[in-house]
Amino acid sequence: MSKIKIGMIGLGTVASGVFKTLQDFDNIEIVKIAVRDINKPRNIENLDKNLLTTDAMSIVNDKSIDVIVELIGGVEPAKTLITTAILNGKHVVTANKELLAKHGEELFDLAEKNNKVILYEGAIAGGIPLIMPIKTILAANKISKIEAILNGTTNYILTNMDMKHASYDDVLKEAQNLGYAEADPTADVEGFDAAYKLATLATISLNKRIKINDIYREGISKVTADDIKYANELGYKIKLIAHAELTDENTADVRVHPMFVSKSTTLAHIDYVTNAVTITGFPIGQVTLSGPGAGEFPTASSVAGDIIVLSHEIGTTDYILPMMRCNHSSSVKVTNILDTVNKYYLSLTVSNKVGVIGKLGLICADKGISLASVLQKGVSDDNTANIIIITELCKEKDILEVIDLLQKEGCINKLNSMIRVANDV
Amino acid sequence: MSKIKIGMIGLGTVASGVFKTLQDFDNIEIVKIAVRDINKPRNIENLDKNLLTTDAMSIVNDKSIDVIVELIGGVEPAKTLITTAILNGKHVVTANKELLAKHGEELFDLAEKNNKVILYEGAIAGGIPLIMPIKTILAANKISKIEAILNGTTNYILTNMDMKHASYDDVLKEAQNLGYAEADPTADVEGFDAAYKLATLATISLNKRIKINDIYREGISKVTADDIKYANELGYKIKLIAHAELTDENTADVRVHPMFVSKSTTLAHIDYVTNAVTITGFPIGQVTLSGPGAGEFPTASSVAGDIIVLSHEIGTTDYILPMMRCNHSSSVKVTNILDTVNKYYLSLTVSNKVGVIGKLGLICADKGISLASVLQKGVSDDNTANIIIITELCKEKDILEVIDLLQKEGCINKLNSMIRVANDV
Repeated sequence: MSKIKIGMIGLGTVASGVFKTLQDFDNIEIVKIAVRDINKPRNIENLDKNLLTTDAMSIVNDKSIDVIVELIGGVEPAKTLITTAILNGKHVVTANKELLAKHGEELFDLAEKNNKVILYEGAIAGGIPLIMPIKTILAANKISKIEAILNGTTNYILTNMDMKHASYDDVLKEAQNLGYAEADPTADVEGFDAAYKLATLATISLNKRIKINDIYREGISKVTADDIKYANELGYKIKLIAHAELTDENTADVRVHPMFVSKSTTLAHIDYVTNAVTITGFPIGQVTLSGPGAGEFPTASSVAGDIIVLSHEIGTTDYILPMMRCNHSSSVKVTNILDTVNKYYLSLTVSNKVGVIGKLGLICADKGISLASVLQKGVSDDNTANIIIITELCKEKDILEVIDLLQKEGCINKLNSMIRVANDV
Repeated sequence: MSKIKIGMIGLGTVASGVFKTLQDFDNIEIVKIAVRDINKPRNIENLDKNLLTTDAMSIVNDKSIDVIVELIGGVEPAKTLITTAILNGKHVVTANKELLAKHGEELFDLAEKNNKVILYEGAIAGGIPLIMPIKTILAANKISKIEAILNGTTNYILTNMDMKHASYDDVLKEAQNLGYAEADPTADVEGFDAAYKLATLATISLNKRIKINDIYREGISKVTADDIKYANELGYKIKLIAHAELTDENTADVRVHPMFVSKSTTLAHIDYVTNAVTITGFPIGQVTLSGPGAGEFPTASSVAGDIIVLSHEIGTTDYILPMMRCNHSSSVKVTNILDTVNKYYLSLTVSNKVGVIGKLGLICADKGISLASVLQKGVSDDNTANIIIITELCKEKDILEVIDLLQKEGCINKLNSMIRVANDV
């Protein structure tokens, strides 16, 4: 595996994440970064200012560079820089959804003609692995439909309108204050951002060139708190859905607009800034990929992923699928279940007499185990009661000792169930 | 791209799906298939019986074959056949979770020594793209935790116990009758199947060799209907969770057991036979991949995907990332929004007088539009009422005409909202 040399265009939020992420990889070297202002303070430790230049064109013309990573966004100068890079024999990694939506066909054709690749995992749905899986491990499929939540800002607003029974205007203002929405939110709330992403995603999924101007687009600014209330009553959530479907071999239905989505679907439960893509095809049926759709580090995961894949392929000629090899994993000690730390759900049958819950609480406290919930669920004919407990985090051997003690002390007649509780929230 | 020659071992459910799927790919040729009984009737049209042999060893010894696809499952004779294939210079694709869990280390080492790859996307979580994304586009990440639903049978049983407030025994019996559970359900319900899958998934995710015998395992047979009821009351679902976490660089916590999962997580909403894997790492944060965990075609998607990826790499030396190239997508007509077919949510303000709903229904019926739901939501001070409608599927231009007509006829004072309804169920 040879060492590859990277030239980066831009050093904003995502680019900083890429820079920090790639520092751990020995076979990748960032040799030059184009910025607007060399002296601007940046959130990167020990950044060598000699890496920086204000002359982006000098980077795409630098013969020693193998791969250009474009992270400035927008059409120009990104388009000219990428075009020049390809003509100069470089591969390109980009997260530029607008450029790909508006000029993807032309740029991909140019790359193909020059035997170069353009990778763009970071351009669509941030950190979610999407483009590479569709192009590789899902390649057996004919994909017929994409349904996706591709914009975090609008999903954040719709989720908050739902949770807080609040109006669009109030939630937008709050989102702007928190930095989840721009001062001018048009690109997000009117669906432009989602439509850009959908243009490229639909093109590679349906294997049909979908033009950005053919995509019907409608934003969320007219969705009311009442609409969301009625949606809930009827078994739905409202989401800004990016939809692309091949209705026959020559016709596609491609659009971005708010949609009632049944609560029985995975998409209905994708909340706040999370993105998700449901892919329908044959032979796979349906898969849903969800995760962070934006942000410094999630998007850096995708951009760095593209770069790492390229780094394994450049210069490799006699070695098939280097990345799919056995990784000679190192050994590790696996924790005994008694030493694991969990919350616990306990269903106990106890005698229905005064002070049982108190004694139970004291014995738990003695072992350092806090109780998060205690519910008494009725009294039976035999004068026993069912007590339901959820503990805070504790060691399995400690909770087992407590149960043993509770039984010996006659506090509980029977342990009906003990189930571990995932510590997700 | 050269044409690759495949030898298949086994022609059961998944193998049949693989056979049917690969028929569409010109560069892949299945030249021989090992079966137990050549004359057994099979659900494959025009199967050439000359492809079949009962001598599996003759396939792994066949010099003309590039790739062995092992789909018989179990340890032997699969292990001997795969070992011989690798020693004979062949790449291997397998969906054999038990073999990889018990002998993966040895087999991967052998492949590495012989400069061959073993691909196994179909062995874990059926159709969900998982292994290849983890090894390629997610390669920038240090994965710290896997939480997964890896067994469809147990998830089907737990979902039904929840939905129907039924006992484990009753639901198991029903699942057996429907073919979702085996006559002897032990491998599924006691967590062996999930543990096999977790052994390999944890190994490649955490980059630590996780041995199957180190995995704590507990099944779902002791989960009661009451446990599920209390879980719901407390904001949880119960799922059979495969959990693997690197607690420090030398210690892993790896186990399969029932778990309370907060309803705020994606995993809580993965129902019936669907599988899902939540991956936590840096820089990505958290992604969840969900889809069909088993079945003829979903698993065939993964097995065929592995084969197609190999077919693009074998014999390719001077061409980087052939699968990530522009696909020269063909053009397509994009349907005008007026010609799309949807269900519609309508929020209407109407005069509060007798017969308005009736007239509204008649005008819709005239245009061939059926109404799925009609709700009247109270009367305002100005003697108007709010009517909420969800229609059945109809053309957008037809519903717009109906709304226009309703306004002209004075049936509705105001269209407050019109939102399209996804036709998912």
